[in-house]
Formats: sequence, C-alpha cells, structure tokens
Amino acid sequence: MSADKKDRVAEFTAFRQRMNERILAEDNQVVRRFFALDTQTYRAGALDVKTKELMGLSASMVLRCDDCIAYHVAQCKQVGVTREELFEAFSVSLVVGGSIVIPHLRRAVDFLDQLEAGEATASAAPPEHGH
Amino acid sequence: MSADKKDRVAEFTAFRQRMNERILAEDNQVVRRFFALDTQTYRAGALDVKTKELMGLSASMVLRCDDCIAYHVAQCKQVGVTREELFEAFSVSLVVGGSIVIPHLRRAVDFLDQLEAGEATASAAPPEHGH
Amino acid sequence: MSADKKDRVAEFTAFRQRMNERILAEDNQVVRRFFALDTQTYRAGALDVKTKELMGLSASMVLRCDDCIAYHVAQCKQVGVTREELFEAFSVSLVVGGSIVIPHLRRAVDFLDQLEAGEATASAAPPEHGH
Amino acid sequence: MSADKKDRVAEFTAFRQRMNERILAEDNQVVRRFFALDTQTYRAGALDVKTKELMGLSASMVLRCDDCIAYHVAQCKQVGVTREELFEAFSVSLVVGGSIVIPHLRRAVDFLDQLEAGEATASAAPPEHGH
Amino acid sequence: MSADKKDRVAEFTAFRQRMNERILAEDNQVVRRFFALDTQTYRAGALDVKTKELMGLSASMVLRCDDCIAYHVAQCKQVGVTREELFEAFSVSLVVGGSIVIPHLRRAVDFLDQLEAGEATASAAPPEHGH
Amino acid sequence: MSADKKDRVAEFTAFRQRMNERILAEDNQVVRRFFALDTQTYRAGALDVKTKELMGLSASMVLRCDDCIAYHVAQCKQVGVTREELFEAFSVSLVVGGSIVIPHLRRAVDFLDQLEAGEATASAAPPEHGH
Repeated sequence: MSADKKDRVAEFTAFRQRMNERILAEDNQVVRRFFALDTQTYRAGALDVKTKELMGLSASMVLRCDDCIAYHVAQCKQVGVTREELFEAFSVSLVVGGSIVIPHLRRAVDFLDQLEAGEATASAAPPEHGH
Repeated sequence: MSADKKDRVAEFTAFRQRMNERILAEDNQVVRRFFALDTQTYRAGALDVKTKELMGLSASMVLRCDDCIAYHVAQCKQVGVTREELFEAFSVSLVVGGSIVIPHLRRAVDFLDQLEAGEATASAAPPEHGH
Repeated sequence: MSADKKDRVAEFTAFRQRMNERILAEDNQVVRRFFALDTQTYRAGALDVKTKELMGLSASMVLRCDDCIAYHVAQCKQVGVTREELFEAFSVSLVVGGSIVIPHLRRAVDFLDQLEAGEATASAAPPEHGH
Repeated sequence: MSADKKDRVAEFTAFRQRMNERILAEDNQVVRRFFALDTQTYRAGALDVKTKELMGLSASMVLRCDDCIAYHVAQCKQVGVTREELFEAFSVSLVVGGSIVIPHLRRAVDFLDQLEAGEATASAAPPEHGH
Repeated sequence: MSADKKDRVAEFTAFRQRMNERILAEDNQVVRRFFALDTQTYRAGALDVKTKELMGLSASMVLRCDDCIAYHVAQCKQVGVTREELFEAFSVSLVVGGSIVIPHLRRAVDFLDQLEAGEATASAAPPEHGH
Repeated sequence: MSADKKDRVAEFTAFRQRMNERILAEDNQVVRRFFALDTQTYRAGALDVKTKELMGLSASMVLRCDDCIAYHVAQCKQVGVTREELFEAFSVSLVVGGSIVIPHLRRAVDFLDQLEAGEATASAAPPEHGH
C-alpha cells in the first residue's frame, strides 16, 4: 500500500502542477492576478513566514479543504515547524471548527506521517501558485 | 491515463444516475418534490437558461462542491457558454470565495478540458434531477 | 419607522465608505491589491456586467452575507436588472443554498423594496471597492 | 431594557411576517414552492415533530443562522421540548460545529430565557413559512 | 464492483481506526480531550441516543462531510433507526441545506444500501472516537 | 456617535459575560467541558500565545464570525500584536476567504480603531470562556 500511496501523492502533485499551468495559460487577468496575490500573501513581512503558514493552515482546516491543508503542512515543514507545533495548530483548528474537522485531521496527520517518513518530500508544492 | 479518466467519468455518471433513481424510488415526498423543484429552477423565465446556469455554477464554486461544479460546467457547455466566459465565471467565484476555491478550480478546468476534448460528452447529466 | 430605516441605510453606507478608506489608507499591499482586483472582477469582458453582478449576487446569497447581497442588489438595479429577474436570481440561490438562505432573502427583499421606493438610492455603493 | 427587548422581539416577528408576505406575493413559483416544501418538511411522519424540530435546530446551529435558531427553539418549546433537552441539542451542535458556534449559543440561550419568562411568547413564528 | 466496494469500505474503516490511534498517541491534551468530549456528547441523557444520532446526522449533512454522514448513518442503524426514518432525516437536511447537499445524499444512500445489504457491517465505527 | 458606540461595546461585553454565566450555570457537562477546553486551547505550549491568537483570528475571519474576530483582535492587542501585524493577519484571511470576508474586515478594523483609541479597552473579554 505504501507504494500505492506514494504514487497517489506523486499523481496529485503532478495534477496540481499541470492544472496550475493550464489555468495560468488562459488569458484571464483576474485569475492570474489572484494567483500572484496568493503567492505574495505568504511572504515575510511584519509577520514571519512560519506564522503566516500556520495561519494559512488553521484557516484551511476550519474551511475543511484537504488540498489546502496538505499544501500548508508541507510549507510548514519546509520552514521548520515541528510536529508538536503542528499538533497545536491542529488543536486550535479542531476547537474552533468542531468535530466536523476530524476527518480532515486524520488525512492531515496521514500526510504529515508520509512527509516525515520521507515518502512524500517530492509532494511539497512549488512556492509559486501553491494552493 | 486518458482511458482511466474516461472510465472514472463514466463511472461517476453511472453512479449519479443510479443513485438518483434509488433516491426517487423511495416513498419520501419532500425529497421527490425537492428534486422536481431543483429541475424547475433552471428553466428559462425572466432570465435565460445560460444566465441561470452561470449563477448555479458560481454558487456551486463558492460552496465548493465538485459534483455540482462539474454538473453546471456541462450544462453551461450544452447551452453554448464559451471557455472564455466560463473562465470569467470562475474568476468571479475565485474572488468572492478566495484561495480555498483553487483546488476546485483545478478540477473544474480539468473537467472542462475533458469535455472539450470530447472525452466526457457522455457525462453531461440528464436535464432531470441533475445535481 | 421609515425615517429610522433611511437613517440606518445612510449610516451603513457612510460606515462602509469610511471603513474602506481606513483600510486602504493602511500600508498593506496585499489588502489594497485584493480590493483593486475585486473591482476589476465585475467589469465587462466576455460576460456583461449584468451577468457578472447576478453571479456575484448568487454567490453572496448562498454564502449568506447580507452586506454583499445588498451591494449586489444595488448594482443589479443600476444596470437594469428587473425585480422579476432578481426574484429568479433569489430562487436559484434559495434552491442551491436551502432554507438557511430565507432570513437573508427577507432582508434582500426589504432592501430591494426600499431601493424601489427611492428611499435607499443613496445607498448604492460607489463602483470602487464595493463589497 | 426588558421593555426594549420585548420591542425588538416583536419588531423582529413583525418583520418576518411582513417580509414572508411580500415574498409570497411575488409571482415566482419556485420561491413559493420552496416555502411550501419547507413547511411540509417538519410535519409528523415516520419521525415525530419533536425529533424533526431538534434536527432543524441542530442544522441551524452548526450553519450559524440566528433567525433559524430562534425559530426552531420556539417551535421546540411549543411541542414540549424541555430546557434540559434543548441544552443537550445545543451541546451536540457545539461539539460538531466548534467554538465558532458559541456566539450563536449565547443568543439562543438569551432567546430561550425570554421565551421562558413569557416575554417572547408572541414571537413564536406561525407554523406556515416559518424560517 | 461489489467486491471492490467492500474493499474500499474496509480500507476506509481501517484508515479511520489507524489514524485515530496515531492522533491519540500524540502528546496533545487538547486534541485528546476533544475526542473524549466528542464520544461523551452522544451518550443518552435527557435525549436518547437515537435522537442525538439523528441530530448529529443532520448537522453532518448540512455541513457536507461524507465521513461524518457515513459514521452517523451507521450509528443510527445500530440503534434501530429505520430506512424510512433516515430518509426523513435526509429530507430535513436537504431542505435546510439545499441542492448542494444532493451529492452527499447520493453517497449517504449508497452507504445505507451497502449497510442494509450486509456488505458494510464491519464499517460501523467503534463507539469511541468515532467521527 | 462615539458615546453611542462606547455604550454598544459595553453592552456587548456585558451581554457576553452575562450569557456565559447563564450557560455555565446550566447542568450540562458537555457544554461546560467545551468551554474549559476552549480556554485551554490558547495557552502557551509548543507555540506561544501570540501565534495561537493569530491562528484563532484567521480561523474566525474565514468563518466570518464578528464576535469571535473582535475577541481575538482584543486578545492579540493584549499580547502585543501590532497594527501592522494584525493587517497581515487580515490579508491572509482575506486571500484565503475571499471578498465575502470584506464586511467582516471593515468591522474588525472599526473595532481595532476603537481599541487603539482607548474607547474599547473594557471590551477585552476576560481570559476565561472568551469566545
């Protein structure tokens, strides 16, 4: 199953990258500007990248978007957020959002486990147009 | 993968049709009336079908329901909405609903690509009880 | 009560305008760009302004945001959407979003009544940074 | 303040009734049918009215609609749901929906207190077109 | 396909159980307490388990969480809720939540069909930490 | 108007405190435990209080709960979050949640302005049972 999972992670990453390219190839300025703005949002400013990624993670969890959660978990890992810190971020999202968040928490922890096992390192989305 | 995808589209369409039949076979008048009302909602009136389908699409995107998005994209194509127009509808939904809409946008564009490639024509839901 | 209501509409419009100015006076480029993008989104393109405003209205109704609904109802009136057409837009939102939309529908119709009675013409938001 | 509150409850009830009449006076069959269906939904069937109202209450709480919550609390009281039972319904909604439900819980308990004090008995919505 | 489906149900159940164990093995007291509270919520009190499970089901449907819906459908079956009663619960959720609930209704009925066919009995979540 | 506003802030704070007491006076253990857990969630752990409050703020903004936003803005101010940092938190929430967040952003900035003007210092919720 582990091989199967790796394939699904790789397939998902390839899908995200391919579709982002399809979307940005379209001549729609509003969509392109939104994607650029999304990237700009998480750059260091008055708050550092780590704090911004943790906020993006919490927002994604209470809105219950698995792809967004996986993206921010990967970004958090890249900037040094520890597993213990991630679980505290999960706990805030769980209490704010309620038990309806639990299925997404399970998938988030599964993704984190894979990341830590080095199985899913390739799945970290590129910094541009990440969501 | 293209063959695999076609299968998944066909499988999804078959699932939708089969389950709609299961649901309507049940002796529950509220559910049946809701399905009938849902169908009636998108008929031409003061507003034409195209405008109503675009509104249904926008509502489905900000509520982030992939099945509903796919259904309305297919309906929009059937009544002549162009790819450029669909992207403008996507852009409204993206700005209203935020980056949390992006994963659904990716799947919507993928579905649209398949529709345009003629791979998914069979997946257009029947006009009755569509969602 | 009619005088009281007019005051509340005027107060709300003044509040919106004053706070938009406060927000844009802040040195935060992401927020400013988002507001500019929001304005750009509803400009005529492949789809006309009327269709885009109707989509914005439907999205606002199913997401249940009274201020956004009032804004788009006012914009729709300005570009010639009739009461009958607005009710069809309401009906799509009601069926997609469910009975939870009804309290917002009541307030939308109340706002529309005031607009048509000429009581609330001043409340039409300025075209820039409208939401 | 108690007099002020009674007025607000009465004002709200009058507003709901007046706007429901305005909405149903409009020649839009989808909207009218939806309102009729909404009424039909809570009639006794395989499940009794009490259970259905408690389900409507839970759904309204996790979707965070104050007007809908107030309506279902009043309906629950009318069919004999006790304060203890209402708090158990609140507790389910709180755990499913998270701390974001708390502000609505406060307003629900305030409304319930008023109902029990006999201050708000007139605010119980009529059984037709209630939400 | 039936064999394939049984596998997917078994796989899902195994995943849920494995991830719940992973989550509770973590030294995060807030998360652990939330899971314990979630279990406590559905115990019989002033309201019986059946009513509480039906409320949990309605809340899950309008919030559109397939895993939560499946869990509560299974729990409802275990405490004797009939198919007719479940469809009435579905109808309340459909009217409150709108057509956006329909795709989840299809998957709920499919899951119910499997449960009734005895194919998915093993998928009933254990009473502890269920969501 | 400033006097009027101060009164409304004071009235709101009094309402929150009074209703929290009413709720906790009720003999419902699940509700009480949820309130206690909510308080525990924001205590310093692997992440400091500032980061947790910023996450709570982002989650509240994308879920569009004015009371929760006001509460977390006040808490953020108490632990030293600057106006510039708060606007970066707002910008993340705006991009994740979309233009539907704008009306809440306006009210958040208005509340922040009042806090900074010293008008609303009394409105900072007590650390216990805050939401």
